[in-house]
Amino acid sequence: MFYPEPIERLIENLTRLPGIGRKTATRLAFFLLNTKDSYITELSRSLTDVKEKIRLCSVCFNITDSDPCAICRDERRDKSVVCVVEESSHMMVIESSNPGHLRYHVLHGVINPLEGIGPDEIRIKELQDRIVREGIREVIVATNPNIEGNTTAHYIGEILKHLDVTITRIASGIPVGGDIVYIDPLTIKSSMDNRKNL
Amino acid sequence: MFYPEPIERLIENLTRLPGIGRKTATRLAFFLLNTKDSYITELSRSLTDVKEKIRLCSVCFNITDSDPCAICRDERRDKSVVCVVEESSHMMVIESSNPGHLRYHVLHGVINPLEGIGPDEIRIKELQDRIVREGIREVIVATNPNIEGNTTAHYIGEILKHLDVTITRIASGIPVGGDIVYIDPLTIKSSMDNRKNL
Repeated sequence: MFYPEPIERLIENLTRLPGIGRKTATRLAFFLLNTKDSYITELSRSLTDVKEKIRLCSVCFNITDSDPCAICRDERRDKSVVCVVEESSHMMVIESSNPGHLRYHVLHGVINPLEGIGPDEIRIKELQDRIVREGIREVIVATNPNIEGNTTAHYIGEILKHLDVTITRIASGIPVGGDIVYIDPLTIKSSMDNRKNL
Repeated sequence: MFYPEPIERLIENLTRLPGIGRKTATRLAFFLLNTKDSYITELSRSLTDVKEKIRLCSVCFNITDSDPCAICRDERRDKSVVCVVEESSHMMVIESSNPGHLRYHVLHGVINPLEGIGPDEIRIKELQDRIVREGIREVIVATNPNIEGNTTAHYIGEILKHLDVTITRIASGIPVGGDIVYIDPLTIKSSMDNRKNL
């Protein structure tokens, strides 16, 4: 192709983003070329800011620009319940459902032997320490209901067994508003196995 | 939501890009958060570089980082034929079809009275000057085959009529490999009207 070098380089850098192919990257590059200078400066600054200002909360390992994070500093939250999630983004999704005054613990991964990720690679040790230190009474394990997430949940259940703490697992079943026709057999089975009295 | 301010700001800036909604922007922001510092620096630099280094070629008004642009400097190209396009990106598309040693003229728009864009808002005057100055013998009008593109082509034809130059228009019809079943009636009509002897 015949794009000038700075455009080619921008396109190439944009294609490294997930879900952005060469065509989309080219469209974005031309949009950026024709956009206001102030937006470019602002976008550029927010990119570097994210890297410079964001770190992990020393309590729950959530991403934050202040330590402890806003959630850990929130005095209205129940100090006795902690919800364990795989990633910060999962925490945000749970928060958006307004689950009440929960606190969180971010594992930053799940146990996945095939990829060489064992319990020591994720923040399980820190969870254990927190339970003892903060006197937590319930741990809600909200890892994804897939093989890795279930393995991790099972492992957490095992290592916390000797502590005086209730361990619960989020329910798996047919999504609210979902149609049975389109649900996979494993979900149907889980939803049947976990049926409740009406 | 509960994202820290620098992440929120990055997400907001990313949603201003065309075709990027809040969900995609969030995914991109988290990807960027977990990516290498060097990539962020590089992306950031290429963003500002595009703005700083890219300008318009003084001959053909193509976007370029050197003036005249690489195409105008290319001595192997036929100096007597100029292909008129709406935007630089259209030129790149035509180049990618290997049309031979063409030169170009980028209008940077089309005549669109509804949006207040008249012939003086696009680079038609500059085209006229070029034809006289460079002794161009053929002008291929490659604007899109829609109302605005056709109007612009017609206008160019009119104002160049008194000059000693052949004016041609790119063909409109069924795309190569296309299926008649899926082609709109206007394209079918154009393709019938412009039929050629076998």
